[in-house]
Amino acid sequence: MSESNAQSNGGVERVTIIGSGPAGWTAAVYAARADLHPLVFAGRATGKDLMPGGQLMLTTDVENYPGFPEGVTGPAMMEQFFKQAMRFGTRVVTDNGVKTGEEIEHGLFTPFANVASVDLSVRPFVVKGDNGVEVKSHSVIIATGAKANWLGQDNEQRLAQSGGGVSACAVCDGALPMFRDQPLGVVGGGDTAVEEATYLAKFASTVHLIHRRDELRASKIMQDRVKANAKIKVEWNKVVEEVVGQKKVTGVKLKDTVSGEATELALGGLFIAIGHTPITEFLNGQLDTDETGYIKLKDPYRSTTNIAGVFAAGDVADSVYRQAVTAAGMGCKAAIDAERWLAEEGL
Amino acid sequence: MSESNAQSNGGVERVTIIGSGPAGWTAAVYAARADLHPLVFAGRATGKDLMPGGQLMLTTDVENYPGFPEGVTGPAMMEQFFKQAMRFGTRVVTDNGVKTGEEIEHGLFTPFANVASVDLSVRPFVVKGDNGVEVKSHSVIIATGAKANWLGQDNEQRLAQSGGGVSACAVCDGALPMFRDQPLGVVGGGDTAVEEATYLAKFASTVHLIHRRDELRASKIMQDRVKANAKIKVEWNKVVEEVVGQKKVTGVKLKDTVSGEATELALGGLFIAIGHTPITEFLNGQLDTDETGYIKLKDPYRSTTNIAGVFAAGDVADSVYRQAVTAAGMGCKAAIDAERWLAEEGL
Repeated sequence: MSESNAQSNGGVERVTIIGSGPAGWTAAVYAARADLHPLVFAGRATGKDLMPGGQLMLTTDVENYPGFPEGVTGPAMMEQFFKQAMRFGTRVVTDNGVKTGEEIEHGLFTPFANVASVDLSVRPFVVKGDNGVEVKSHSVIIATGAKANWLGQDNEQRLAQSGGGVSACAVCDGALPMFRDQPLGVVGGGDTAVEEATYLAKFASTVHLIHRRDELRASKIMQDRVKANAKIKVEWNKVVEEVVGQKKVTGVKLKDTVSGEATELALGGLFIAIGHTPITEFLNGQLDTDETGYIKLKDPYRSTTNIAGVFAAGDVADSVYRQAVTAAGMGCKAAIDAERWLAEEGL
Repeated sequence: MSESNAQSNGGVERVTIIGSGPAGWTAAVYAARADLHPLVFAGRATGKDLMPGGQLMLTTDVENYPGFPEGVTGPAMMEQFFKQAMRFGTRVVTDNGVKTGEEIEHGLFTPFANVASVDLSVRPFVVKGDNGVEVKSHSVIIATGAKANWLGQDNEQRLAQSGGGVSACAVCDGALPMFRDQPLGVVGGGDTAVEEATYLAKFASTVHLIHRRDELRASKIMQDRVKANAKIKVEWNKVVEEVVGQKKVTGVKLKDTVSGEATELALGGLFIAIGHTPITEFLNGQLDTDETGYIKLKDPYRSTTNIAGVFAAGDVADSVYRQAVTAAGMGCKAAIDAERWLAEEGL
């Protein structure tokens, strides 16, 4: 393999990838195999949002990523993605400079540089790390993901991270045996909350849809679906005061937002469906996004954005599916699109 | 897990999947985990096109499907996909009736029923096997793939199937060490052929673009790219008379289409880029396709087609990327879209 890198290319990278979930590493695998020697910023974006490996680092059991029939833990899976990207010549920005696969000792626990900002108004584009590193790059792939919105309670976070029956993704986790024939709670009132409640009703004994208001924000068709489903009970005007449970969630303490009355609800699982926040703040408005912050794809079949040479992949541009395998597919598209664009531009 | 199946649902399936490559089995994993008990037709479509496991069954080394850092053979990977789908309650149609995962003994070498035809003009839809089986289904996912067009020579096929340096996919195989610094041949004259030639020029000593005419069908921008690339040499007015090589391809015998002159070209690899044929003939024109036969997605971000309740995934609807991971991502989308559509319709 040729040892060309940014140095032999006038100090300008051909592809810089920001993000290190399934989309980022898949883009790196494809870009590396296309001999583009991609550079990856795998650290956090804007200080607190992105973690190396993405949301899957918080996922205990992944049973729906195809290729792992016995299931796999999220961190083990992301370590495989990382190794595969590094094997073909990907480089990562660390706090101690740019490193190749042979120079990395701690896998995803390497002290990766965090991204501070990007400047997409100049060519080549500029990506700045929060450790002072500054990279010039002919193309950029944004794969920073999205984070689930949580209630923000300690016990909720503890149980979510330990596989204790608290989740922000019904499609990912709903089919786990622990939730079968159990009373399950879904917190939220939008379309996603109703979708997740309907999905979970297949498995649950009852689904309690816990909503802070006296009407759903969900569309009419979704509301009808809730009404038609005998297994779904809406807990109107309720907020979760406390998530209860030691090793596993056993229930929630609720407060009525009108009467102030406190009640308790026994649950075998709790799904938080109060939306996601795509990690696009560090872009500072330079890419077109929707009102929530999701990057708008110029061609929805591809990975192109409103700026030529800038591509988007994974949850940062996906408000609909948000699965590891869909993110990986988008990462592949972004690398192929970047490779073809660079060839067109003669870069 | 509930044992509901078509019998407990009035004899009507909820999801029937046609196809058994990455898209089909990923759709099955997601549909099965959504408790839809999908039924898969994994055999051939219209007698000769589809094979269980899809194009990857002919692929010796898969190095770019994320999750397998050491690489994996195509058949081993598809066996994993198959196992994962069966584990969660997928059923397959065989020549001996419908079977569950526990009842299958020979993995992808099970005698799956082939698809003869579908009727998408009635609700529920009807899928017919060539062994007389007839399935009614509320939704259908088409994931029959596409087949690469080949020159059709015995030695070409033999070397392609044995990892002997003949391939129909530069993005899949171009980065393999065997092709580094070798003279490589690309057969074709369209945009894909030029894209593959440009891609391979990164690795090759020289790329010979072998084209039967005296001008390329490729777009202007692509033609300029060929001219600008010193590593690419166009062999005008040439057809491949014979692929030469025992364990590995060593060259091709060419014939000039104008003068009739015979020449020989030494090669370390041969890439056939004369297009793909999506497997849609069995649909008999019931779904909108482009002129080549690729299914047109109603919303290019999703898996919807022009018929509500019919979804498409993988290479059968993808003329652009055609990768295992993009097909798998589309399979996931199709299952999620089908699940939501069934819920909306109350089916």
